Amino acid sequence: MTELVAPVASVQERFALAKTASRAIGALSGAQKTSVLNAIADALVDATAQIVAANAEDLRRGVSNGLATGLLDRLRLDEARVEGLASAVREVAVLPDPVGEVVRGHRSPTGVQIEQVRVPFGVIGAIYEARPNVTVDIAAIALRSGNAVVLRGGTDAEASNKVLVGVMRDTLSAHGIDPEAIQTIDEFGRDGARELMRARGLVDVLVPRGSAALIRTVLTESTVPVIETGSGVVHIFLDESARLDWARDIVVNAKVQRPSVCNAVETLLVHRAAAARLLPEVISSLQAQGVTVHGDETVAALCSGIRPVTQEDFETEYLDLEIAVRVVDDLDAALEHIRTYSTGHTESIVTSDAASADRFLAEVDSAVVMANASTRFTDGAEFGFGAEVGISTQKLHARGPMGLRELTSTKWLARGAGQVRL
Amino acid sequence: MTELVAPVASVQERFALAKTASRAIGALSGAQKTSVLNAIADALVDATAQIVAANAEDLRRGVSNGLATGLLDRLRLDEARVEGLASAVREVAVLPDPVGEVVRGHRSPTGVQIEQVRVPFGVIGAIYEARPNVTVDIAAIALRSGNAVVLRGGTDAEASNKVLVGVMRDTLSAHGIDPEAIQTIDEFGRDGARELMRARGLVDVLVPRGSAALIRTVLTESTVPVIETGSGVVHIFLDESARLDWARDIVVNAKVQRPSVCNAVETLLVHRAAAARLLPEVISSLQAQGVTVHGDETVAALCSGIRPVTQEDFETEYLDLEIAVRVVDDLDAALEHIRTYSTGHTESIVTSDAASADRFLAEVDSAVVMANASTRFTDGAEFGFGAEVGISTQKLHARGPMGLRELTSTKWLARGAGQVRL
Repeated sequence: MTELVAPVASVQERFALAKTASRAIGALSGAQKTSVLNAIADALVDATAQIVAANAEDLRRGVSNGLATGLLDRLRLDEARVEGLASAVREVAVLPDPVGEVVRGHRSPTGVQIEQVRVPFGVIGAIYEARPNVTVDIAAIALRSGNAVVLRGGTDAEASNKVLVGVMRDTLSAHGIDPEAIQTIDEFGRDGARELMRARGLVDVLVPRGSAALIRTVLTESTVPVIETGSGVVHIFLDESARLDWARDIVVNAKVQRPSVCNAVETLLVHRAAAARLLPEVISSLQAQGVTVHGDETVAALCSGIRPVTQEDFETEYLDLEIAVRVVDDLDAALEHIRTYSTGHTESIVTSDAASADRFLAEVDSAVVMANASTRFTDGAEFGFGAEVGISTQKLHARGPMGLRELTSTKWLARGAGQVRL
Repeated sequence: MTELVAPVASVQERFALAKTASRAIGALSGAQKTSVLNAIADALVDATAQIVAANAEDLRRGVSNGLATGLLDRLRLDEARVEGLASAVREVAVLPDPVGEVVRGHRSPTGVQIEQVRVPFGVIGAIYEARPNVTVDIAAIALRSGNAVVLRGGTDAEASNKVLVGVMRDTLSAHGIDPEAIQTIDEFGRDGARELMRARGLVDVLVPRGSAALIRTVLTESTVPVIETGSGVVHIFLDESARLDWARDIVVNAKVQRPSVCNAVETLLVHRAAAARLLPEVISSLQAQGVTVHGDETVAALCSGIRPVTQEDFETEYLDLEIAVRVVDDLDAALEHIRTYSTGHTESIVTSDAASADRFLAEVDSAVVMANASTRFTDGAEFGFGAEVGISTQKLHARGPMGLRELTSTKWLARGAGQVRL
C-alpha cells in the first residue's frame, strides 16, 4: 500500500498530478484498460479483509456519531459487498471503449479530411456522500472512458475510501500506469471540496452525486463545468382513458419497488373525469404496501386514510413510502402542474388515447418522458448503457441516464496536404 | 412597429415571456420555420431605410464617443449590408431542421420502446458586442433550431438592434407566432446583462460572443450554463521535416488572410533543426505582407527586422498583423509550449513525418487539431454546418465550430404498454 497517500502537500498539486496522469490514461488502448480494470477487481477481492476492517472503523465512528440506520447501511461493506464491487468493475471492464469513436467526418471541398472523434474529458471531479461503492464505481467508469479522477467522498467513509483508492492506485502502478490518475482528496475536508469546485483549467468536469442540497451547493459554487444529476420530483398522470390495471401496476411499481431512488414517483396526478373510477383501487393498493398518501379533498372524498396535501408536498422528493396525490381538471392542468413542480427528471402518462400520449411526450420538458411505463425504467442498465454515472437533469451535454459516452468530449481532426483558405 | 417595445416592466418578466414563447417555437415544423425566416429576410430588406437611419444614429453617437475605426466599421449597416443580413437569414431558413432527429433508440428487454430525440434548449441568451449583424444571425439560428432568444447586444448598437428586433418580432406576429420568442434587453443596460447571467431556470443556455474579457466575465458571473466561445491563441508548429512551400503558404494564409478572427495564427513554433532552412523564407513572406514579427534570438540571428518576443507575446491574441515566433528543440518542446499557452481553439503541425503528425493530432488537447492545413479552416462553413454560432473552446456539450445541432438538447421518450420494472 505504498501509494496510499501521495507524497504532495497541497490539493492544487493533486489536481496538477491528475492532469498530467490524464494524458497517459487517455492514450491507453481499450485492451489495456480492460486488463487493468480486471486486475483492480481481483485486487479488491484480495484486499477484502483490509477493506472490511477499514469499513468497520467507519461504521464504529458512524454509530458513535449517531448516523441514521439507512446511512449506516449504505456505508457498510462486507465480504459479499466487496465481491459485488469487484463484479461491477469487471462489467465496466468489458464495456465498449468510447474513446476514438469517429462521430462524423467528411472531406472538405478543398480536400481537407475532417473528422470528429471522441476523446476523454481529461480529469473528472466527483463529489459524493458516504457510499464507498461510489468510490470504486466512479473510478472504474472514469478509467474505462480514459479519464483521470479526483474523488471527494463523504468524511464518514474516509477510512474505507482510503483503502479502496490505495488498492486501485497500487494496481495502476503494478501495470506501469501513473497512479496519480486516481486521487482522493478526502483528507483535505471541506477545503478540498471547495478547491475542487474552483479548479477550472485543471479539472474538466465535476459530477456531484447525492442529495439535492449537495448538488445545489456544487451548482452554485463551482466554476468548473458541472453535470447536474439526480434529484427527482417525478410525476405520473393518470389520463381520463387510463386502463385501471396499468394505472395500478405502474403507480405501485413506481412508488414501492425502490422508494429511495430518484426515479421513484413522488406525485400522482389524476384526471377529474377518471378519479372515481381509478383512485379507490390505486390508492388502496398503495396503502396495502405501506404507502402514506397525501391527497386533496377529491382524493379524501373517494378514499380513506388520506392525509392533507400541501404545496410543500408537491415540492418534496420523499424518497420514501409516501406520495402526494392531486386531482386535476384535464391534461392541460396536469402539464401546468408538472411545469411548476417537476425537477425535469422523469414523468409518465398512463392513457389509452394516442393524442394525449403524443401531447404529453412532446410537451413535458424532462430528461425522460414516458407513456404507459413505470418511471423506474429511467436507468442506465434499462437504457442499455451497461454502467451508469448518474441521471443528468440538465440540458447541456448530457440529459437522462449517463453512460461512458457521456464522460467524453470530442475533438476535430483535420488532415491536409498544404491546403490554405481562399 | 407595434411590437418594438414589449409592454412589460421588468427584465425577469421578459425572460418568463420568452420561456412561454419557447414552447410554441419548439413545436413549429421545419416548413413553418422556413416560411417565417424567409418572411423575416423579406421584411429586413423592406425596412432597409429605417434600419440604415437607426444605424446612422448609432454611428453618429459612436463617432462622438470616439469609437475606433474598426469598431465603427463593424457597427455600420448600409443597403448592401442589410441585403447581406437578409441573405444570411435565407441560408439559415433552408438548413436541415435539427429538432425531432432521432439520435438513437432501441426496444428494451421488457418491450418498452426507448428513443433519444433532439429537442430545442428552450431559451438561449446571447451577450455580444456592438455588431448588429449578430442580432439577426443569432435570432435566425435560434429560431431555426426551435429556440426563443434573449439578446443583449452592445449599447453602441442599441438603435440599430431595436429596429432589427422590431422587424423580426412584427414578422413573427404576422405569422401568428408569439413575438416574445425574440427579445432584446438592451434598454436594461448592464443590469439586464447581469440578470441574464443569473436567470437559471428561465434561460437554458448562455452564448457570449465577443472579446476574451467579455467571455471571461460571463464565465465567472453566470449561473446559467455557458457555452464558451472563441478566444484563440492559435499555434502552428513547423516540424523538422516540414516542406518549405507548405510551411510558407500555411503560415502566411493563417496569419494574413483575415487577421482579426479567432482562427488566425498568433504563435509560430519552429523545430530547431529546421529553423535555418524554413525561417528566412517564411518570415520574409510574412514581412512582405506587413506582418510585425516578434522572435527569439535564434529567429533574430536568421532573419532581419525581428522584434524581441516576451512571455506576454505568447499569451497574446494579437488579432492583427503581428506574430510571435519561437524556435523549440523538438516536438515535445512544441507540445509543452502549446499546453502552456494554448486557449484550446486550433493548432496545426506542418510535417512530412506521419509519426509526428499522429502524435500532434493525438496529444494536442484543442477543439481542432490539424496537420498540414491552415488554421483558418476552423469555421462552420468549412466544416459543412451552413451556419455558425461560434467556435466552442470548452469540452462540455459542444467543442469546435457550432452549428444548429449544437443549439439543441435531447430528451428520451419511452413508450410502453403497462410495463413495470421487476
